[in-house]
Amino acid sequence: MGYFRENVEKAEGYEPGFQPKQADVVKLNTNENPYPPSPKAMRILAEIGPEQLRRYPDPIGDAFRRAAAKVNGVQPDCIMCCNGGDDLLAIAFKAFCDESRPVAYPVPTYSLYPVLANLQNCSVIEIPFDDEFNLPARLAGTDVALTIVCNPNAPSGTFVSISELASLADELTGVLLVDEAYVDFAEDNCTALVNDFNNLIVLRSMSKGYSLAGIRFGYAIAQPDLIAGLMKVKDSYNVDAVAIAAATAAIEDQQYFRANVEKVKVGRRELGEQLRQLGFEVADSAANFVLAGCGNCKAGEIYDKLVQRNIFVRYFDLPGLRDKLRITVGTEEQNRKLLSALKAILSE
Amino acid sequence: MGYFRENVEKAEGYEPGFQPKQADVVKLNTNENPYPPSPKAMRILAEIGPEQLRRYPDPIGDAFRRAAAKVNGVQPDCIMCCNGGDDLLAIAFKAFCDESRPVAYPVPTYSLYPVLANLQNCSVIEIPFDDEFNLPARLAGTDVALTIVCNPNAPSGTFVSISELASLADELTGVLLVDEAYVDFAEDNCTALVNDFNNLIVLRSMSKGYSLAGIRFGYAIAQPDLIAGLMKVKDSYNVDAVAIAAATAAIEDQQYFRANVEKVKVGRRELGEQLRQLGFEVADSAANFVLAGCGNCKAGEIYDKLVQRNIFVRYFDLPGLRDKLRITVGTEEQNRKLLSALKAILSE
Repeated sequence: MGYFRENVEKAEGYEPGFQPKQADVVKLNTNENPYPPSPKAMRILAEIGPEQLRRYPDPIGDAFRRAAAKVNGVQPDCIMCCNGGDDLLAIAFKAFCDESRPVAYPVPTYSLYPVLANLQNCSVIEIPFDDEFNLPARLAGTDVALTIVCNPNAPSGTFVSISELASLADELTGVLLVDEAYVDFAEDNCTALVNDFNNLIVLRSMSKGYSLAGIRFGYAIAQPDLIAGLMKVKDSYNVDAVAIAAATAAIEDQQYFRANVEKVKVGRRELGEQLRQLGFEVADSAANFVLAGCGNCKAGEIYDKLVQRNIFVRYFDLPGLRDKLRITVGTEEQNRKLLSALKAILSE
Repeated sequence: MGYFRENVEKAEGYEPGFQPKQADVVKLNTNENPYPPSPKAMRILAEIGPEQLRRYPDPIGDAFRRAAAKVNGVQPDCIMCCNGGDDLLAIAFKAFCDESRPVAYPVPTYSLYPVLANLQNCSVIEIPFDDEFNLPARLAGTDVALTIVCNPNAPSGTFVSISELASLADELTGVLLVDEAYVDFAEDNCTALVNDFNNLIVLRSMSKGYSLAGIRFGYAIAQPDLIAGLMKVKDSYNVDAVAIAAATAAIEDQQYFRANVEKVKVGRRELGEQLRQLGFEVADSAANFVLAGCGNCKAGEIYDKLVQRNIFVRYFDLPGLRDKLRITVGTEEQNRKLLSALKAILSE
């Protein structure tokens, strides 16, 4: 063709986790919450009238900003609504990175970061985690425009302490984006640091803890100056009226949210223990998935055999991950089906 | 701050049309359809279940692609779903433009184009329309990566013939994007050209003709190779499950759509005639708005006086537009209120 920019022409594009269309599968591959969203979000959806569809949405989603600000103990002008967390990542790359402004992040991590870096034509400094997924000390000295730490990290589920992230934000010359897409399942988060650091952006998602992956809603928490700059980069109407309404209702229902998250945490503990009993190595996870290592086994083969049984987990054909499976915490029933399939496969 | 790229730091950001929060205003400023969306879209919305919110949406929105393909007489792989037409514009800039790959378009036109060009750091060749908004001949010789023609054009409402656009696509060395956001109100469109030109992208919106501005849904029509390249640039889940469902139901209801569009066209003709009776110059419009020139008057002052009466139209403080108001075609009642306010203002 020759019409595209060279970096786009060469790009392979991001491969999202497979979305099977059959209903009767055990789907533990894209870290969705196994439990439904708040009934209050469902009720709001049922009340949407034609006027809300006919008119443009509020360009900045003020109703959600106020609700999220309250939950996070910040002011509404510290919040920016996004069309999923991925929208915020794309906005951040566009805001901070280009040919002369690189990005850095520890690896392995969320596989979208290099895809976005390529589209923005910025160079990438990938610094390997050690075996225990500790924050690499070298990250602080990179002098890049944007540093990303996914915390809890995907696909490891590991958690870097908030004090280490505070030190990192302090040492960096550029922006630190902490991708907290999974933080609802952890014991701590970075929100309080936003007051102290004018170079910190916290990414939050409504997809995991709030069971709203279908409506694409995430948000940024940062100081108002950073938010104002990011607003210039976002699409003018990046979040839709229905999503704003559902996300606002969901985040206001903290009681349901906490109970939902607690159930996932219980499931995570049980799943981890039972995987260990089957011989897998499973590090403690602060997310809604576990990374299960199978020693000398071929994780790719186990993955294929699970697919044959209509059970979907995630396998990454990447360095450091080829002996591991990333398994979303499902319902009790889903976890049981997975474990019994694994047991059968391992004894073949 | 110094954290942002220089082009972002300097950017003013796109200013979307004002979205008044009161319900009792006459809102004719952002080209929304005055009539509600298809009842079938509303019904689908009421049937959305928790599973559709809990799970990620189909990343490429196949249900909508099939429906849009049928309506437009193309194959589904000629369609890409977008989070509003603006999403497609941002994707196109990212796919085709950078420091060494400029964009060209006739002006005055949709004011988002220069904003996106600045974010993508590409140079802009703006070629003025003549007084009758004919396609500037010079456009064909620019040798740029991306040429955009908004057709019907905003804010003029004028229409360039399809044969002229075919000649342009043929002469260009780069991609031609025809922004047909308003084409549902015109008598012709570019879809048939997609078969003939591998450098043509047609932009469509569900916001205007289908009364769905609130859900942010647009789409591209182009040959499969172009679509595949654009897909690499879009966010992986750029459209949400609820929006896919509502947009699919709406585009399948062609009977409602045609009746809705017909009502707007009748309103447009009447509004134009009555504005002319008040002394405005109103060119024929192929869109759901009219551009009303008031000769030696100060359009900005009329705008302010309308705002005082809770009537919102659009005024652009830009060359060639300072003596004009862009007025969305409203319901009969809205048009009447506007006209009687204008009459009062002009006789002051």
